[in-house]
Amino acid sequence: MIDQRLLPHQFLIVSTKNYRQTAAAIHDMTVRGAGAIGATAAYGLAQGALAFRGNDLERFKRQVETAFTVLKQARPTAVDPVNAMHGVLKEMSAGRTVSEKQALAVAAAEEFANEDVAHCKEIGRHGQRLIQNGHRVLTHCNAGWLAFVDVGSATAPMYAAGAAGKRFHVFCDETRPRCQGATLTAWELAQQGISHEVIADSAAGHLFQRGEIDVVIVGSDRTLGRTGEVANKIGTYTKAVLAKRHGVPFYVAIPLSTIDWNLKSGSDIPIEERSEAEVLGTWGVNGRKTREYVRVANPSSGARNPGFDVTPPELITGIITPAGIFRPQDLWKNRAKLGCKS
Amino acid sequence: MIDQRLLPHQFLIVSTKNYRQTAAAIHDMTVRGAGAIGATAAYGLAQGALAFRGNDLERFKRQVETAFTVLKQARPTAVDPVNAMHGVLKEMSAGRTVSEKQALAVAAAEEFANEDVAHCKEIGRHGQRLIQNGHRVLTHCNAGWLAFVDVGSATAPMYAAGAAGKRFHVFCDETRPRCQGATLTAWELAQQGISHEVIADSAAGHLFQRGEIDVVIVGSDRTLGRTGEVANKIGTYTKAVLAKRHGVPFYVAIPLSTIDWNLKSGSDIPIEERSEAEVLGTWGVNGRKTREYVRVANPSSGARNPGFDVTPPELITGIITPAGIFRPQDLWKNRAKLGCKS
Repeated sequence: MIDQRLLPHQFLIVSTKNYRQTAAAIHDMTVRGAGAIGATAAYGLAQGALAFRGNDLERFKRQVETAFTVLKQARPTAVDPVNAMHGVLKEMSAGRTVSEKQALAVAAAEEFANEDVAHCKEIGRHGQRLIQNGHRVLTHCNAGWLAFVDVGSATAPMYAAGAAGKRFHVFCDETRPRCQGATLTAWELAQQGISHEVIADSAAGHLFQRGEIDVVIVGSDRTLGRTGEVANKIGTYTKAVLAKRHGVPFYVAIPLSTIDWNLKSGSDIPIEERSEAEVLGTWGVNGRKTREYVRVANPSSGARNPGFDVTPPELITGIITPAGIFRPQDLWKNRAKLGCKS
Repeated sequence: MIDQRLLPHQFLIVSTKNYRQTAAAIHDMTVRGAGAIGATAAYGLAQGALAFRGNDLERFKRQVETAFTVLKQARPTAVDPVNAMHGVLKEMSAGRTVSEKQALAVAAAEEFANEDVAHCKEIGRHGQRLIQNGHRVLTHCNAGWLAFVDVGSATAPMYAAGAAGKRFHVFCDETRPRCQGATLTAWELAQQGISHEVIADSAAGHLFQRGEIDVVIVGSDRTLGRTGEVANKIGTYTKAVLAKRHGVPFYVAIPLSTIDWNLKSGSDIPIEERSEAEVLGTWGVNGRKTREYVRVANPSSGARNPGFDVTPPELITGIITPAGIFRPQDLWKNRAKLGCKS
């Protein structure tokens, strides 16, 4: 996986030796983004299965369950890891021996990763009509190809529109505290040759007021299939409130693995509280071209750091999925089309 | 003046030798905040007057006019410098000779500074009833004693409530890109022993949703007496939109010098576009305890950096002034009470 903590200043590919290292890489955000951590968790579960020696199916099952729990707990707000690992477990159930189950686990992880790419391409196909020539698009955090296996969710319509020859401009919220917009999305858009500028998270309100934003497209870490509520990076809700006030369409782009068909209310989504240090300072590159953490805030002050928020369906114009664009309230009635197994 | 760019990591008092250095200190934000730059501009104009040698009243007038223009242009969105300098010019007009006018200029600057303190104390007296035991208060940027000659505007009700023995908690928006909330407000509140935490600007929406904010109090760089529109640090408008949606009262605390009685529309307020570097990186203290700038964003990306936004009166519960608390729409009909000279 690409070590996303070092981007855009350093490009480094890292590997993990076992599922615990893989869970740690998810937790410390070496790898981040809905689809990317889904695929990583799927491979992590396969690592857990492959590491088992022997033929005892009961002990094998317990080891796989431990790996499942450790990988799930690495990022509690996200649903992709859980959905991806459920898919792996389901495939594994067809195996009769430990070695059969091990082989099926690897194949299922591969399948999740391939499906993630296919889903993102379909999101781009459906979503690109939302971006017209001359549009100014706002996005938050990074839901680009770094956050998936390829293509990305929120970026998929942008890349498809770019490939179709449309000219448009993207405002990237810097997305404090971890600045995924300033570092990852800006880097991705630069790689793709798409016109863009970074803005402070607070600046979008002013741009909305001045009529300088035509459409908002963001990703999601968990979308509730029953209610249409969207959990995504902290600050997403605020952008949806502003978009609604200014009559600007607000879209959420997701592969099917991001849909949670079980939870009945957004208030049941666990919101990860991350470390104070993220808010009290930042990582950047200093004058000696070295990456380092600087403390910004008053040394004796603490911080609150909720990592996500939940946007209610009435603020969302549409959910862009691989199966088409749906009103958030209509996900449930289209659940068969959207891959709901229950 | 305190060099506010170095806080909270270093406390340094700096002096300026002439009005051009004073204007530079306002422009580069060595000194910042509505009342503080008002007083600084008043003293700067007195510096310009004092530097004149000779008795020629016509040449003296031209020198003072040049100083006025240079000091005004240092921060185009703010109105305190202009109001403060108009006060100085008015006092000076009573002098018949250059030396009389010079003495009057110094006295007028002193008077502005003293009045600023008195105004802030009155804001505290009127505003402290808005903060109850157990309240969670949100503030944005720094409208504390650093931003004035003393006491502060948005902080005045907090300091008065604290002095009255009330217990409450303050959330300080970090206030990207310059992080005045994380650096200055957090430092001030720590000095005053007031319970507080820093949050990312994007986190307030989530706290509003969870019912964790009871009242918002911010300052202003320019408030239109005719319309009740409030120009303040970028991001203020967004907080007002969120407060309205969640039924949380939103107050703006201002001394009288912050009121602009002339402009007829908030869209006529010039919005300062500041440097890209502020958004693309940040200043902080590194592991060697040295203050330095780190680049955060993708190296090949640019940024937009509007410094202020304008909040319309329908989002504002009340304007806390030294003369009492008014609905923003009622400033004009109370203009005599609020020191309007026209």
